[in-house]
Amino acid sequence: MRRVRIVLVRPRGGGNVGSVARAMKNMGLGDLVLVRPRARRSLLARAMAVHAADLLEGARVVLTLAEAVADCALVVGTTARRGRYHVGAATPRELAPEIVRRARRQRVALVFGPEDHGLANEDLKHCHRLLTIPTSAAYASLNLAQAVMVCAYEIFVAASKPRPAPGDADLQLAPAARVSFLFERLQHAFLRIGFLPPDNPDHIMFALRRLLGRTGMEERELRILLALARQIEWHGKRQF
Amino acid sequence: MRRVRIVLVRPRGGGNVGSVARAMKNMGLGDLVLVRPRARRSLLARAMAVHAADLLEGARVVLTLAEAVADCALVVGTTARRGRYHVGAATPRELAPEIVRRARRQRVALVFGPEDHGLANEDLKHCHRLLTIPTSAAYASLNLAQAVMVCAYEIFVAASKPRPAPGDADLQLAPAARVSFLFERLQHAFLRIGFLPPDNPDHIMFALRRLLGRTGMEERELRILLALARQIEWHGKRQF
Repeated sequence: MRRVRIVLVRPRGGGNVGSVARAMKNMGLGDLVLVRPRARRSLLARAMAVHAADLLEGARVVLTLAEAVADCALVVGTTARRGRYHVGAATPRELAPEIVRRARRQRVALVFGPEDHGLANEDLKHCHRLLTIPTSAAYASLNLAQAVMVCAYEIFVAASKPRPAPGDADLQLAPAARVSFLFERLQHAFLRIGFLPPDNPDHIMFALRRLLGRTGMEERELRILLALARQIEWHGKRQF
Repeated sequence: MRRVRIVLVRPRGGGNVGSVARAMKNMGLGDLVLVRPRARRSLLARAMAVHAADLLEGARVVLTLAEAVADCALVVGTTARRGRYHVGAATPRELAPEIVRRARRQRVALVFGPEDHGLANEDLKHCHRLLTIPTSAAYASLNLAQAVMVCAYEIFVAASKPRPAPGDADLQLAPAARVSFLFERLQHAFLRIGFLPPDNPDHIMFALRRLLGRTGMEERELRILLALARQIEWHGKRQF
């Protein structure tokens, strides 16, 4: 991530530049270059950067896009427009793995145009690849900082791929024998308090098995339900 | 996408609400609900919404989160925090396909907390699933509108994919108001039989909510658990 640079070409709003700095820091990026910014160290920029003020302060300011990307092996231009120079633009998801691979060894730049008109054709000449963020046809123009966030997020996720964040698939589920034992205890307890009809307890137990079987149980969750079965059973016993 | 709702709980900044409206429209979402917003129709909100002013104007304002999600079959709470109630949170990429499948038939809510502290534990009780956006450890707190954008973007991308075969996600789930009611009854019953410590019933109830929230409940299954709560309560009562 150290070698991924965000380049803002002629940004107009200081608030946007601050928001970009925050989004970058959220996603582990640190190299910000501004090409002829209108505002940079405004109060609004600082306010929007919040805890990324250091990144804002450290941003390099240059006069041309050529200068901003001179040391980069891959330069990706972002565009919302569809037109003659925009054919063949890839999505952030398609490009992110390539950006990550490249950035392991060489610098990569992502270039964003001004808020109102995006990158000019003159700017696009400096770009090796084009990137377009998929949007609703009803409103295709993203806020500058939002566009940076989507790209930075995709790069961050692609860079984290070998070790993805923990999700449902990573839950350590209790083994089947434990689950069977739990359902035995639950059935026993439910019969005690007259929740199940003694002649046909299976019907409701099937429904409960299916409900809990859909999700799978961790040992911790299983222990809670086991404790519940014990408590119900104890109350059932007290009365007879 | 019509059935995906964005719920902002006690948002403080009008600019953020406007930015959220713009991000939603960029990604094809249209249903915005605000729970006790501090600002809504401020000049800044309108300025940040740009061409999504219609969405901002049409936003519904309610007094409680329960009201905001009452008709939703799946309620996803977003959180940046790591802590006891945040274990097992999924990423937007993991959850997006499930949200899209569910939203083909029933309403889904994505819930975002206030800018400063995120969702309170009280808010999380209304959520069936938790979502955490992966971030750099150096700065994990996203701007509210940026967080909405990342989630909306993932949903938009997932919705653009071809339809998968029908599965668990095609179950007709009970609405959130019913699920809340069930957990109230269960908590009441569990307290009666001394299964929950009266001074801190939340800890175990959170674990049960998470377990059952992972899978979702059909009305039939919900009724079984409701009957169980009644039966436990009846037994609890008999003894005192």
